[in-house]
Amino acid sequence: MTDQPRFLIIADGAFGPETSKTADCAIRYIPERVAAVLDGSAAGRTAQDVLGFGGSIPVVATLEAGLNLGPTALLIGIAPRGGRLPDEWRGWIATAIDRGLDIWSGLHTLIGDDAELAALAIAKGVRIFDLRKAPDGIPVSNGRARLVDALVVLTVGTDCNTGKMTAQLELLHALESRGIRTRFVPTGQTGILIAGWGIAVDAVVADFVGGAAEQMVVEAAKDAEVVLVEGQGSLIHPGYSGVTLGLLHGSCPAAMILCHKVSRRLIGEYHKGTAWIGIPPLADMVRVYEEAAGWVHPSRVIGVALNTCDLSEHDAATAIERAARETGLPATDPVRFGADPLVEAIAQAAARRRAAGSATPA
Amino acid sequence: MTDQPRFLIIADGAFGPETSKTADCAIRYIPERVAAVLDGSAAGRTAQDVLGFGGSIPVVATLEAGLNLGPTALLIGIAPRGGRLPDEWRGWIATAIDRGLDIWSGLHTLIGDDAELAALAIAKGVRIFDLRKAPDGIPVSNGRARLVDALVVLTVGTDCNTGKMTAQLELLHALESRGIRTRFVPTGQTGILIAGWGIAVDAVVADFVGGAAEQMVVEAAKDAEVVLVEGQGSLIHPGYSGVTLGLLHGSCPAAMILCHKVSRRLIGEYHKGTAWIGIPPLADMVRVYEEAAGWVHPSRVIGVALNTCDLSEHDAATAIERAARETGLPATDPVRFGADPLVEAIAQAAARRRAAGSATPA
Repeated sequence: MTDQPRFLIIADGAFGPETSKTADCAIRYIPERVAAVLDGSAAGRTAQDVLGFGGSIPVVATLEAGLNLGPTALLIGIAPRGGRLPDEWRGWIATAIDRGLDIWSGLHTLIGDDAELAALAIAKGVRIFDLRKAPDGIPVSNGRARLVDALVVLTVGTDCNTGKMTAQLELLHALESRGIRTRFVPTGQTGILIAGWGIAVDAVVADFVGGAAEQMVVEAAKDAEVVLVEGQGSLIHPGYSGVTLGLLHGSCPAAMILCHKVSRRLIGEYHKGTAWIGIPPLADMVRVYEEAAGWVHPSRVIGVALNTCDLSEHDAATAIERAARETGLPATDPVRFGADPLVEAIAQAAARRRAAGSATPA
Repeated sequence: MTDQPRFLIIADGAFGPETSKTADCAIRYIPERVAAVLDGSAAGRTAQDVLGFGGSIPVVATLEAGLNLGPTALLIGIAPRGGRLPDEWRGWIATAIDRGLDIWSGLHTLIGDDAELAALAIAKGVRIFDLRKAPDGIPVSNGRARLVDALVVLTVGTDCNTGKMTAQLELLHALESRGIRTRFVPTGQTGILIAGWGIAVDAVVADFVGGAAEQMVVEAAKDAEVVLVEGQGSLIHPGYSGVTLGLLHGSCPAAMILCHKVSRRLIGEYHKGTAWIGIPPLADMVRVYEEAAGWVHPSRVIGVALNTCDLSEHDAATAIERAARETGLPATDPVRFGADPLVEAIAQAAARRRAAGSATPA
């Protein structure tokens, strides 16, 4: 995409551990590229204060204050429900373009399709990167991903925003450090931002969700022993379940990691006032995903990745022990306690796959 | 959309009971608007010869022969896998525009987005109707459809192309003739062509499949006792399952009708060389759909609609009896033997719903 931009991240009114996923992940995985975060409600604090990581990256109150810190690009750091561009932000984007910053956005509303902003960008010679802009020519999926030699591992979730991308990024680093050739397949705007390639599968035309996943898995599997696919949504989420199933059937994982935020009680409860479906026990979710995968290609859940960021150390440890007991699977919070139990499960599955020499479930 | 166009339908090399769904359905449900079908391989025959219905509608060998029969619009009558426009057809479309015909298309590739064809249409003053063009502003679904008073009935299938739209159109006419206020919700290009409204849910951005269905169900339910939603794809189809689940969770049906083509053995086998998943027993498919629906909103399969168009009378009757026995549900081929058993099941479910006064499964 580009070489080392330095981002001013817009997360106005929403910067926090649950509410600004793209901003938070950029700060966790590419902090060296983050100049500042714009959020009037948290101004004067640091990323560390707000998130518990990110060190001294400052939160500023105004666009002007952020621009004074020398960013080379503006990053839209929140992904509101439906992904549309708040009207009031257009002025900030126009100002940033006028000051020579590139624009990076993961919103459904493509900034490059905004005639006024696009014209301004051309006039100023800056680039607009719409992370959700899908390439042309994606095929309809047809199980080609089930035929790759690599072990394909998909993260699946009880809900949106449970740590499916984060788990894969932690696993990527841990597997690579063990010398296992591993590739990460980004399927959402934040993963694409971090990895520098990928397709936002929720932004393609519905018939091609599976095809986008299939195309990326086949590509990634060419030079990897393990392919880690970033999951999306949840099969039980009333708004996003279709994307989740398309991704599951398109990527044909032999193994899945179930991701859950322990404190979450209702599907989508982080979107105020819209939650009404309770999250079932983890063992039920394991069964749901294995059954749905099996309609096209058999797959097993081989581990559980919990997000315990808002729990005490003791409560987190208890939750992990309970999840392991209830599912009979290795469990951890890969950010808080390391990914080792999941790395071990994946390494064993990859070894079994090598030994069997065939495309069977892990 | 428009008043009574008279169509020349392009189905070149593909006109037949299994291979030209849009053409076939137009001939079945709006034959008075069909001037001719263009297919060199069947030229000289009639629709009746090729399909077993459609009377004397002629099949012609060349565009010119078709144009001589006085059409006012060109209809792209096949929906190739992936929905893209074959290159060689662009010339026919250009000629038709040049001769003053409107263009109707259900392809994913929007004809109106083709700069050359769009400019030609403007110059000639003809209209381009892209049936798969989605409206702006579709929301993310969130179960609003589960709250409507009407009985929502979704057709679901073992595969694509099993009769999900046809079953609903037959039920629409049968329910209306019983005096039950019924509305049909079209979710694909052919349904939209026939009904004159709707959204092709497989053509919207993936995040909004459920929202498109939800929006249409809520609208249709305002003045109907029964809402019949056209189903799409199959939960076990490796290419289209995501659309199917999004539609299921967005429309929140209280009742489902399972549609199956009896002679079909493998998912997608009508697309040559790509089929590899066997179709499970119907009772298993009932369980799959009820379980997947229940992740968001409980629903029951209340009947089976079989497509027996390529079977003998005896084999068709045997298949219907077997389906009823295996599932314990009313079954029929609504085109061949009438929709009565399904109409009865829907009428009973609607009556139970009125009596219960609540949004419960049928």
